[in-house]
Amino acid sequence: MRILVLGGDGYLGWPVAMHFSAKGNNVCVVDNYLRRKICKETDSEPLFKVPDLNERASIYEQVSGNRINVNIGDCSDYHFLVNLIKNFKPEVIIHFAEQPSAPYSMRNYSSAYLTFKNNLETTFNLIWAVKELAPRCHIVKLGTMGEYGTPNIDIEEGWLNIHHNGRNDTFLYPRQAGSLYHTTKVLDTDLLWFYVRTSNLCVTDLMQGPVYGLSTKESDLDFKLSPFFNYDDIFGTVVNRFVTQAVAGIPLTIYGKGEQIRGYLNIKDTLQCIELAVENPPILGELRVLNQFTEKFSVNEIAKIVKNSGAELGIDVKIEAINNPRQEKEEHYYNPRHSGFADLGLKPHLLSNEVIKGMMNMIMPFKKEIDIKKVMPRVNWKN
Amino acid sequence: MRILVLGGDGYLGWPVAMHFSAKGNNVCVVDNYLRRKICKETDSEPLFKVPDLNERASIYEQVSGNRINVNIGDCSDYHFLVNLIKNFKPEVIIHFAEQPSAPYSMRNYSSAYLTFKNNLETTFNLIWAVKELAPRCHIVKLGTMGEYGTPNIDIEEGWLNIHHNGRNDTFLYPRQAGSLYHTTKVLDTDLLWFYVRTSNLCVTDLMQGPVYGLSTKESDLDFKLSPFFNYDDIFGTVVNRFVTQAVAGIPLTIYGKGEQIRGYLNIKDTLQCIELAVENPPILGELRVLNQFTEKFSVNEIAKIVKNSGAELGIDVKIEAINNPRQEKEEHYYNPRHSGFADLGLKPHLLSNEVIKGMMNMIMPFKKEIDIKKVMPRVNWKN
Repeated sequence: MRILVLGGDGYLGWPVAMHFSAKGNNVCVVDNYLRRKICKETDSEPLFKVPDLNERASIYEQVSGNRINVNIGDCSDYHFLVNLIKNFKPEVIIHFAEQPSAPYSMRNYSSAYLTFKNNLETTFNLIWAVKELAPRCHIVKLGTMGEYGTPNIDIEEGWLNIHHNGRNDTFLYPRQAGSLYHTTKVLDTDLLWFYVRTSNLCVTDLMQGPVYGLSTKESDLDFKLSPFFNYDDIFGTVVNRFVTQAVAGIPLTIYGKGEQIRGYLNIKDTLQCIELAVENPPILGELRVLNQFTEKFSVNEIAKIVKNSGAELGIDVKIEAINNPRQEKEEHYYNPRHSGFADLGLKPHLLSNEVIKGMMNMIMPFKKEIDIKKVMPRVNWKN
Repeated sequence: MRILVLGGDGYLGWPVAMHFSAKGNNVCVVDNYLRRKICKETDSEPLFKVPDLNERASIYEQVSGNRINVNIGDCSDYHFLVNLIKNFKPEVIIHFAEQPSAPYSMRNYSSAYLTFKNNLETTFNLIWAVKELAPRCHIVKLGTMGEYGTPNIDIEEGWLNIHHNGRNDTFLYPRQAGSLYHTTKVLDTDLLWFYVRTSNLCVTDLMQGPVYGLSTKESDLDFKLSPFFNYDDIFGTVVNRFVTQAVAGIPLTIYGKGEQIRGYLNIKDTLQCIELAVENPPILGELRVLNQFTEKFSVNEIAKIVKNSGAELGIDVKIEAINNPRQEKEEHYYNPRHSGFADLGLKPHLLSNEVIKGMMNMIMPFKKEIDIKKVMPRVNWKN
């Protein structure tokens, strides 16, 4: 299949691109290096340098024999996107091309505006380019479990049948996100749903939980093929940050009470989920929503796993609660369904001490590079 | 009070500005004349010429003694908006500054993109300018009943308490609009709700139905103070279009079965509703949603009222069903609540033969100016 990966330089974009290439697909990656630029500007650079896309594609071709096409450009530029789709004629487009940091989106007007404009315009332009040039193309869109927020009722898989005053109808599950970044994904979903029903598009919207890990089958071929590993407060997700804090010998910083529960998954399962979504497309005119995570943890539970894993490697891990820079419920009900991918055949890689120890061993050689100034919250969401 | 009216040149913006000025408020209107530009480009100019804002403000000052400040500029330009708010220090901002035509938003990529970008960026920038410079300012935002679409359950006033698997929570009422224009208002609501709960803003979001009429207490002082009267397929709402077709002696064109039901209101009641919203602000941190219409009609019922009113003036009005250019349910359940404004004291001006005859008499002098080419649908939403 011809698969176009928008945002192919990212934490997930690059591993996904290699994964589909390894399976024999014709893969093209596109990126404007926005994430690299923002990481630099906010002093949030990843733990180790990651070669640019052309270099990575060249290393990957050397070790695997598979060629990935690289296109550097901005997907929020409609004419660029139109030309890309005209030339490459994708059958599947995997859309990761969004500013992915929640704290960054809460930083100030400029960061919020960049997030809002980039994420919404990219999705809008993608919809139109597909509608005009490739109406049967399957759009696989990376959303987030954060779109749902933490409601007091069970979270269904995208849709909710509502009974009200003796009548009923089915709606998109109500969404109320905790950051502007997550809110842009809510707006993306609204927009996709509008054009799916009026223009008969074929869309999978993935409500993904926080991802951890830095090892995939293809990235293991050469360390230079590893994804970005951010451990800072702006781009680092909680598991990756905790593992780094443990290795650096500084306390794991828990925001507030630490009873915030989310659904997590290993980066290996992101690849598996997206492959299952691509192999089992929805029909034209369907917006399929899948909740993409494998297990739920509170922040306190994750800290405990990291502490125990550290102990097994002889590291004494401390845990410290700090003021929560975010606006979020620190204790809440959380019961999201996630049977869609199980039904499609997902075999989860669950979180374990072995997995955490594997991550610790991979980043241990970079212990001296860890900049502990980057770890503490630098963005206060209450401003 | 210091009241800033964004989109003050529009069908509703200008009458609202005069209304608040007449009540002794310090009113400033802002507009970039986008609607005039689009009307010209799409050959959808209103029935009679409307002087520009500076001329209208000058005529209004001559006849009333009240001065309205005029600012020409683009509210999607953040720095322009910031300076405006810094200088004028509004206590209330009434936000009409959006591209208001549903058919225009469904025309092609460029029209859709303009609608999307203008409407979303204006709302985003307004939120930030208020958050940064006037956090206690009451934002009165013009949304639309069209945000709800035509669900199979009762439409509540903005919010819905959902019972699910033995638990319950309250959410924004699920929205699924029928055009991109209406969808931009759904996204506006999502965005306002996000910043209301994270930044403690004070917002009223008005879900308004289609408005009819061209007479208000202030516009009646001088015909040159009348609002835009569009009767074309792109900017003309159904009542205004039917009245014009009747006067022109051409059939009223019903889209499809004509059983599409909506909640309507007289332009006089738009003024009354907005005044009630301004006089009774929500608290900080509250997103108050009010359904703004006074009575429900099907398109067939409106056609019948116009036909009967015409007969009373000796006009033989024909009615003709044509293919529906829109994508919408032509028969559906529709039971929206609208008790919020009644509770605040709204005294409705209901639709009657007298009201329609009044409109017919006002536009009769322009009978020769009616361009019947503008009436038939020029935008097919299924493209």
